[in-house]
This record gives sequence, structure tokens and C-alpha cells, in this order.
Amino acid sequence: MNQIIFSDRSDRKEVEEGLTFAPKFDDKGLITAVAIDAETKQPLMLAYMNETSLKMTLECGEAVYYSRSRQEIWHKGKTSGHVQKVKEIYTDCDQDALILYVEQLGEGACHTGRPTCFFRKVAEVAPEGEVKLQLTEGQSFDPDSVYGKSKK
Amino acid sequence: MNQIIFSDRSDRKEVEEGLTFAPKFDDKGLITAVAIDAETKQPLMLAYMNETSLKMTLECGEAVYYSRSRQEIWHKGKTSGHVQKVKEIYTDCDQDALILYVEQLGEGACHTGRPTCFFRKVAEVAPEGEVKLQLTEGQSFDPDSVYGKSKK
Repeated sequence: MNQIIFSDRSDRKEVEEGLTFAPKFDDKGLITAVAIDAETKQPLMLAYMNETSLKMTLECGEAVYYSRSRQEIWHKGKTSGHVQKVKEIYTDCDQDALILYVEQLGEGACHTGRPTCFFRKVAEVAPEGEVKLQLTEGQSFDPDSVYGKSKK
Repeated sequence: MNQIIFSDRSDRKEVEEGLTFAPKFDDKGLITAVAIDAETKQPLMLAYMNETSLKMTLECGEAVYYSRSRQEIWHKGKTSGHVQKVKEIYTDCDQDALILYVEQLGEGACHTGRPTCFFRKVAEVAPEGEVKLQLTEGQSFDPDSVYGKSKK
């Protein structure tokens, strides 16, 4: 495949309404990407891409992120097998956020062993002001056996 | 309502697996929030909240963001009428991202007049390397009449 080229962002109207892809990378060189299960529409995770990882995603058809903690390209599932096959990529009006509809391979997206990273929801604000969460997903795999103990 | 208190983040295991809400605000004091239509599961927009706007969201049950461009609290729909009634709030494993399932009032979420900000998807990588988008949503309202010409 030829080199992928992103369009320039000098024309705001074109960025917001046009049909050329001009992703905005922030002051750290990153764009936010939300992976959603293409079939169930369940949000799986929110992560970041840099220009290289976004181009890799477009080239290979699998989600490639940039790990802020490890400061490196992160081809999701390369070691765990929990690859995300990208079905569709949406961008928003100012092109600084991406939605990836994916087929999640393996047992789940989250390093804690759940199918999704969004496995808790706000349940209530307790009388003393503390906000309580509620578990909405159990573990679908043993994270130790997939990632090893070091990642926990 | 009493003052809302967010839990501290000193215990990583508690943050990742526990049932207390300990949102992580980044070095700019912001957390990423994705609004999704509670009924259709269509992603509507991605925006940011600071601590105050997140507490306001929990208190009033409507999405209150922080506008990075205007550098101010942004109670979505306060002027346009396009309020987002919050049905559920999910947090992810490291509690640095939120999913808001909302009922979108009015004709849409996007300042360009579409029901969603994610109204374009990647269609193809052209032979010369340019990435082409495809329109997936038409306008559901006239943005000039809702926001005035200044916002366009």
C-alpha cells in the first residue's frame, strides 16, 4: 500500500463538513479513539492513537493504539490474542475523536479480565456524598493467564 | 444535596476493581466523556469534563461539559435546547474515561446540524494515499437558527 496521507486542517469548513480525513492530534500528538463492539454496540475501551498508529490501523485493519504509560505503539492483542478487527472508523465534526467499530477477538478487551473496560456504572450518591459504583460485568477470562501477573 | 466527594486514587486495585468512584482528571484537570444515545446506542459526541462539571452532571442529571475552546463550564443545550438527560454513567478500568448514556433532547447533538457529531466514516484510502470520508448522516436541523451564525 502507498503511504497514507492525512489532509491538512487549514480550512475549518472542510474539516467540519468535507469528505477528506484530517485528524487532529493534540499537543502530545494523540487522538482519542473509542472502540465499540460492532455487533452489540457495547463500548469496549477508550484509548489513544498517534499518527503512526492510526496509519497502521488503516493499513492492517486491526486497532493499533499508542500506550501513554509505556510510551510506545500498542498493537492491541499482539501478545494476548485479543486483537480488534476494525470494521468501521467514524470521525467527529472537528476530527479530534474517532469511533472504531470492531470485532473483539478472544475473551475480552480489558486487562482486568472483563469483556469491556466499562464494567462499572454509577449506582448512587451516598448521603455523605461518596459516589458508589455498581459492577455490570463479571470476568470473562483470567487476566493472569493471558497477561501474566506483571500487568495486573 | 450534600457535597459530592470523589474517592482518592491511591489504591490502584481499588480504582480498577472497587466500587468507589475515583475519576482521574488529567494534567489539564479534564476527563474524557463519550455521550451515547441510550436508546439507539449511537455515539453522539466526545467531550471533556472538569471536576466541577462532572459534579454538576451528577447533581442535575444533565450532561455538563467543560469547553476547552471557550475555557468554561458548558451545560450542553442550555441555550440551544439540545439538553442531554443522563440515564447512566459508566467508568472504565482506570477511571479516566466516562460513557454517558443519554436521552438527547431537540433535533441533535452536533453544532453542524446533525443528530450526532460522528456523521462521517472512513470510506477508503485512495491510490495516492489520501483518506476519503463518507457522509452517514444528513442535517436534522438548521444550525444557524439554533446556534446563530457566530457558532458556525
